Amino acid sequence: MPYKNNILLDTLAGKKTNRYPVWVMRQAGRVLKEYREVRALAGSFINLVTTPELAAEVTIQPVDLLGVDAAIIFSDILVVPEAMGFPYKMEEEKGPVFSKTIAGASDIHLLENADVEDRLAYVLEAIKLTKKGLENRVPLIGFAGAPLTIFAYLTEGKGSKTFSATRKFLYVNPAEAHMALQKITDTTIAYLKAQVRAGADIVQLFDSWAGIFEPEQYKTFGEIYINQITKAITEVPVTVFAKGAWWSIERFAQTGCTTIGIDWNITMADARQKAGNTKVLQGNLDPCVLYGTIPDIQQASNKMLQGFAGNRHIANLGHGVYPDTDPQKLRCFIDTVKEFNLN
Amino acid sequence: MPYKNNILLDTLAGKKTNRYPVWVMRQAGRVLKEYREVRALAGSFINLVTTPELAAEVTIQPVDLLGVDAAIIFSDILVVPEAMGFPYKMEEEKGPVFSKTIAGASDIHLLENADVEDRLAYVLEAIKLTKKGLENRVPLIGFAGAPLTIFAYLTEGKGSKTFSATRKFLYVNPAEAHMALQKITDTTIAYLKAQVRAGADIVQLFDSWAGIFEPEQYKTFGEIYINQITKAITEVPVTVFAKGAWWSIERFAQTGCTTIGIDWNITMADARQKAGNTKVLQGNLDPCVLYGTIPDIQQASNKMLQGFAGNRHIANLGHGVYPDTDPQKLRCFIDTVKEFNLN
Repeated sequence: MPYKNNILLDTLAGKKTNRYPVWVMRQAGRVLKEYREVRALAGSFINLVTTPELAAEVTIQPVDLLGVDAAIIFSDILVVPEAMGFPYKMEEEKGPVFSKTIAGASDIHLLENADVEDRLAYVLEAIKLTKKGLENRVPLIGFAGAPLTIFAYLTEGKGSKTFSATRKFLYVNPAEAHMALQKITDTTIAYLKAQVRAGADIVQLFDSWAGIFEPEQYKTFGEIYINQITKAITEVPVTVFAKGAWWSIERFAQTGCTTIGIDWNITMADARQKAGNTKVLQGNLDPCVLYGTIPDIQQASNKMLQGFAGNRHIANLGHGVYPDTDPQKLRCFIDTVKEFNLN
Repeated sequence: MPYKNNILLDTLAGKKTNRYPVWVMRQAGRVLKEYREVRALAGSFINLVTTPELAAEVTIQPVDLLGVDAAIIFSDILVVPEAMGFPYKMEEEKGPVFSKTIAGASDIHLLENADVEDRLAYVLEAIKLTKKGLENRVPLIGFAGAPLTIFAYLTEGKGSKTFSATRKFLYVNPAEAHMALQKITDTTIAYLKAQVRAGADIVQLFDSWAGIFEPEQYKTFGEIYINQITKAITEVPVTVFAKGAWWSIERFAQTGCTTIGIDWNITMADARQKAGNTKVLQGNLDPCVLYGTIPDIQQASNKMLQGFAGNRHIANLGHGVYPDTDPQKLRCFIDTVKEFNLN
């Protein structure tokens, strides 16, 4: 089922395209006043996430308003732990806060096996509504948090600069950590498969806190669960974005994922050297570039594009777009990518 | 002036030693109950930092209580911006908070040229008292924050997960950023030279937030000022600890520093490969290892020591020791290093 704009799927399929596809992490939301209107209507971030009609509406907004080559379902990585029995609140400035945490080995049993079709029905419904609303214009990306990042929030209870409670847990209770990570992995596989059945054309795993771990620890507790997921999801291309884990790029390039997400803290040349030529790379403009002037944004974007070796790239930022970004500046980045001719 | 325990200076001088020297970032403070007693006496963290007798006392404590091969002066990297007109408070859980910040280009002039001998006399006095108290047992390490990390706190006003205000400033006002960084650099050079005159045998630069920057941006706004400092400080060996900036190790190895600090997010083998054999490497055990059992700590420490290639290493953690670490566990790490025989 080719889309009217099929450039992202063509790139993933290894076809030659005349430009790079482009989308932006956190494109649905934050920077658009049209998003903030819907968000106000919803009353809270979590209400917005759990109301399929509204989630679908903000998912589609950037396709119309920014001209991106894909939509990504508006949701949150923390819907999975919530479905597994750990509800969270989104606090202003502070971010997510969990009312209960995994503080010790004996808390692992609190993680419930979730029936994702039931507990996360609102996401699946939002995907279906989005697909309808998109009217075959662009593909839709589904996503989930990678198991270790989910486990990090569950053990820490909130965001952290060091996630030392999580890292402590891995050293002190490795067997229980593996039990928890396996449970989260199983649920995540079921959840992503359900997203695909509902209509997701691509799925992305966000391992937002990968870089905080010691490389050997990340291999043991992070990579193996990501690899279980990329192996299990055979229906659609899978993107792995393990932020900060530059030492894993070489190994992820040997696994079943199609695309590796690259953050702004490594040059694309270094990333390509580590990944080799078999994978698509996605990224990696520093989102802070978008605070600059239009000519500066064009120059930095073109520099990044010139650094892409060959055709196997998806242009994106190296992190989610920051909330106070001027949408015209974001649009400038997207337009610059679209005007960069590969012929 | 060889010290009774001269192993750290011998290692820095390239002499063969029969074991690796060891000290621990944040060894003065936090984990020791003897520290907390002095801290309570001082009333506040900042009172402790600014009272030379008490600062000297807690600086010497770990030499007696933990058996480390060096003392490091108890102070804070933020005494420099304070001396330059930007006072801060230490808030529980939150960390440092500045009452005024560098919000835009026009705020650069607020940075005062500080007479460090006057404004930071309390640190210099603490160094002198420490030297007396140490009675020639071990060398004393002085330190300062690297200019970009200081600038990051001044622009952000507090700690941050992304330091996006700082990164924005560098993109939007590069000329003014360079002016500020040069001012901070000049003051830092004067400050470190004064520390050496007061008795510091080694100095370390902490670039705690180096890893948050885009590599090219870090080169432009971080590395060049560090290099000015390492070039200017010819009196004693200089250690550069640019946390997270693995892409800079290769370049720092070409500069005037003697030692490169390595965090826990890179394997020592990778770090050594990047640095080559001309520099001493310092680090890099994950501080969370110290939450494990004694046998686990011994095993992880020995694994790290076996990974040190040759003699040019200083054993340390890859980050400051975390506050809730059992001092017996920290002692176990130090003892394991001291028992690891190089003959």
